[in-house]
Amino acid sequence: MVFARRPLLLFVFVSSLFVACVQAKVHHHKWEISYQFKSPDCLKKLAVTINGQTPGPTIYASEGDTVVVEVKNVLLTENAAIHWHGIRQIGTPWMDGTEGVTQCPILPGDTFTYRFVLDRAGTYMYHAHYGMQRSAGLNGMIVVRVPEGFKEPFTYDREHSILLNDWWHRSTYEQSAGLALPGKQFTWVGEPQSLLINGRGRFNCSLAVSGTCNSTHPECTPYMLTVVPGKTYRLRIASLTSLSALNFEIEGHSLTVVEADGHYVDPFVVKNLNLYSGETYSVIFKADQDPTRNYWVASNVVARKPGTPTGTGILHYYRVPRGRLPTTAPPTGPLWNDTMYRFNQSLAIHAHPSFNEPPPSKSDRMINLLNTQNRVNGLMRWSINNVSFDLPHTPYLIALKNNLHHVFEQRLPPDTYDVNTYDINTVPINPNATRSNSIYNLEFGSVVDVILQNANTLTPNNSEPHPWHLHGHDFWVLGYGLGKFNPELDPKKYNLKDPILKNTVVVHPLGWTALRFKADNPGVWAFHCHIESHFSMGMGIVFQEGVDKLGRLPEFIMGCGESKLGN
Amino acid sequence: MVFARRPLLLFVFVSSLFVACVQAKVHHHKWEISYQFKSPDCLKKLAVTINGQTPGPTIYASEGDTVVVEVKNVLLTENAAIHWHGIRQIGTPWMDGTEGVTQCPILPGDTFTYRFVLDRAGTYMYHAHYGMQRSAGLNGMIVVRVPEGFKEPFTYDREHSILLNDWWHRSTYEQSAGLALPGKQFTWVGEPQSLLINGRGRFNCSLAVSGTCNSTHPECTPYMLTVVPGKTYRLRIASLTSLSALNFEIEGHSLTVVEADGHYVDPFVVKNLNLYSGETYSVIFKADQDPTRNYWVASNVVARKPGTPTGTGILHYYRVPRGRLPTTAPPTGPLWNDTMYRFNQSLAIHAHPSFNEPPPSKSDRMINLLNTQNRVNGLMRWSINNVSFDLPHTPYLIALKNNLHHVFEQRLPPDTYDVNTYDINTVPINPNATRSNSIYNLEFGSVVDVILQNANTLTPNNSEPHPWHLHGHDFWVLGYGLGKFNPELDPKKYNLKDPILKNTVVVHPLGWTALRFKADNPGVWAFHCHIESHFSMGMGIVFQEGVDKLGRLPEFIMGCGESKLGN
Repeated sequence: MVFARRPLLLFVFVSSLFVACVQAKVHHHKWEISYQFKSPDCLKKLAVTINGQTPGPTIYASEGDTVVVEVKNVLLTENAAIHWHGIRQIGTPWMDGTEGVTQCPILPGDTFTYRFVLDRAGTYMYHAHYGMQRSAGLNGMIVVRVPEGFKEPFTYDREHSILLNDWWHRSTYEQSAGLALPGKQFTWVGEPQSLLINGRGRFNCSLAVSGTCNSTHPECTPYMLTVVPGKTYRLRIASLTSLSALNFEIEGHSLTVVEADGHYVDPFVVKNLNLYSGETYSVIFKADQDPTRNYWVASNVVARKPGTPTGTGILHYYRVPRGRLPTTAPPTGPLWNDTMYRFNQSLAIHAHPSFNEPPPSKSDRMINLLNTQNRVNGLMRWSINNVSFDLPHTPYLIALKNNLHHVFEQRLPPDTYDVNTYDINTVPINPNATRSNSIYNLEFGSVVDVILQNANTLTPNNSEPHPWHLHGHDFWVLGYGLGKFNPELDPKKYNLKDPILKNTVVVHPLGWTALRFKADNPGVWAFHCHIESHFSMGMGIVFQEGVDKLGRLPEFIMGCGESKLGN
Repeated sequence: MVFARRPLLLFVFVSSLFVACVQAKVHHHKWEISYQFKSPDCLKKLAVTINGQTPGPTIYASEGDTVVVEVKNVLLTENAAIHWHGIRQIGTPWMDGTEGVTQCPILPGDTFTYRFVLDRAGTYMYHAHYGMQRSAGLNGMIVVRVPEGFKEPFTYDREHSILLNDWWHRSTYEQSAGLALPGKQFTWVGEPQSLLINGRGRFNCSLAVSGTCNSTHPECTPYMLTVVPGKTYRLRIASLTSLSALNFEIEGHSLTVVEADGHYVDPFVVKNLNLYSGETYSVIFKADQDPTRNYWVASNVVARKPGTPTGTGILHYYRVPRGRLPTTAPPTGPLWNDTMYRFNQSLAIHAHPSFNEPPPSKSDRMINLLNTQNRVNGLMRWSINNVSFDLPHTPYLIALKNNLHHVFEQRLPPDTYDVNTYDINTVPINPNATRSNSIYNLEFGSVVDVILQNANTLTPNNSEPHPWHLHGHDFWVLGYGLGKFNPELDPKKYNLKDPILKNTVVVHPLGWTALRFKADNPGVWAFHCHIESHFSMGMGIVFQEGVDKLGRLPEFIMGCGESKLGN
């Protein structure tokens, strides 16, 4: 007998299986996706909601638990798909919810059942990964608690979750159609009208040029965070902005950062925290200020000249009347164009010493990705190494597994660009780019380095931060730089000792970010700028690794493009 | 040999086949459905377009020709389907374009190729048959000319086509979501903002509460119909309004009605013509007025208190400067609530004596359909015999052919209502109704009578006309009445001598309309109020006949609901 040779190991294996079976729970959720009129910033607008709400319900579970979400699409003519942002979907790549990559969209009337394991405690999110539905309201948070008995490297009395977002009065149909117009015909998108804290903002109704704006609508009552003097709080903060880089602050209260994207970090104290779309953090703060007044909770646009007023909520000391607004002015955050301030905060983050998992010391492959803004056939696009990404209509996972080679470009995209000569400080000399849906093949189990390089846009003296999100993995952030990456010198300065693990990281204006990950999760994984319109406009790539190791794909992910019945 | 017994017949058959092959053409069209910003009434709005246009391109062909339309959906997240209104799809029921009935919707990125024969000359239309996309702009006309050598029963020098529509500034997403809200929460829909003539209207920009309104935008230049004095014109007029019953008039020019829904009618002269959504007419007029001035072409709302200004175009006598507007006031049409005026025009239409195909003298089945307005779980709905219709998400045609009995309610809907006791003149005493997707089974080849009975709505002293459209067939219009149908007396007054054949007919306020058709076209066919929101709210039924006679269904109509891969 094979097993007889390893009786002890077998025993350990069976016992741990038993423990897992006893403790891990299955959480069932039934969601209906529908249109609803909502007034999150007091202006009534059609939103895509979950069970009538935006943001959708927060999913609470513990590490190791299984979440089952039956998503019924009751939109009239529009499909849907939901991505579980930060959940690696180990062994279940078809549950990643990325339309065009891992599944076909969910048709009106259909129910798609997502089922996956929450493999690690932390703060995560979910959101639509189809068209621009995310910013239409289809989003929410996932809070994964540590297993019972596990001690986190910090303590607190209570916890709260805060989802930050920006909000637009134009519909996402208008926005996406506008982005697809050549030239500068479309000037509607501009800046978001409001910043939301847990789905609540406040538009100045006297500025409303259209629609119904009601400044006393209960849906735009400011978010209120009630605290008891002397108590300590954990705040789980997530940003799902469409566009805006944000700075978050609680007036008068310093924040100790303890978690980023599901990983414990070496605690550091900030007056305010910069968050880029797709990032999550946990911060600890103590209700240690004058308990006879309330304080502002504030979110401000940074890194782009703000055209959106401060988003505000209330930190409410529980003996103070709830409705009493602070008499102080809301915090306005750091200077919007103080790149160094944000850069230094990026550098301040290190893995927690007790939870440090250092990266492999070397990589097997280095991919240099230059982010540029381009004009393809008169259309504004974003490109990576001069390739502007388009999603295919047959998901890659199905195409690869079922050998449908013709559904996407088989020529491989470039691993690098003219690193030595490209001038990142000027507008692109030749802004033309190729549109393609080709993808990167990664050797299974290999260690991959990616250096993301930012550059000047088509506007002189302009470069914006781009938060890049990797599906199916965490990556180590080996280093950040301002200016052009130097392949000789900069790798020598990589932090290989205690870099943080993340799933989303910012590339600063005219800067670079280097990251490393192990291609050990069989599947097909998007890697893209988390600004929704930037991904729509081509700022992304796709990795495949170990698809041959996957068993038969579930048929319920199919039904579109070449995976229709009869094809 | 079997054929040897009928040598002459075989010869005739082969010859006529040869003639058909020589003459019948195949017309190929490639269409892309996309969002575009359009200003049909001077206010910029996102529209669903075909090749960038709304209305879409007119299809011109001749009787017997085949039309092939490759419809590529390039919308971002929204599906589509196109119905060929008035084309009976004999032998091709899967080409009818009715989502939920004959096909699955076309997904973004997919191309669906419609291919069908235009079996009869006449004036037809096409439009989306999915959600409320029709009123988002996805519509156009089909002009089928007579075969060469065929003499029509009237003459003219030139012809023009006119598509009438109403236009809303709210998006169809907002409208459909509003209709799905319980109670009276949604008061946005109301009346259309503009009436369009060939996609051109004129909103008073000073009333614009939102958006970009430019009264000199070229897209809202009035439609101009240029004529040469003394010449005779055929006008093919079609109405695809979402809601409005219309009256069409050319100032100072009488119109001779010669065709209705593809059938020649005994010519009759009108000052103006009432059209209900889904109807088409041909009229003949002579450019016989003062040729030194221009005249108004006008469309007015009737049968509903007008909240929409007159839609205007210009009849341009070719020597007059094109841009010169008439100095007269545009025609305002008949009194909006003059039901008798419209009723009498309905009665004036008879089949042309030389093209009269009288109906079978008797029917095999009589179906009495009471149209009521109801409130189901707080939601405003329309019902037929107390059943408010819902479309299934697996098309009936596929479900029936592939024995998927569970995808729709198998209990048959009622053939009648409490004819003797129901009081059509009051608001429904018990406004509750059942929602169901059950359908009517018709015996193949049988003759069916349908009596549509209108009733008072939920508003006291209110009843509106409903234009009912039957797919896959024409029907004889046996009679109209005002008041309640009397099953003893009214059938005796049926016109069995020269009733017109139509595919769409109005049921007047508080009135009834009796029609007869032969269930001889194997397939599944919707029969519904052509007011887009009314069908959405349940005002329709579905007939099936002879589905067992159909061969294997084409797989490209599948892919949704239970017809997905793997089901």
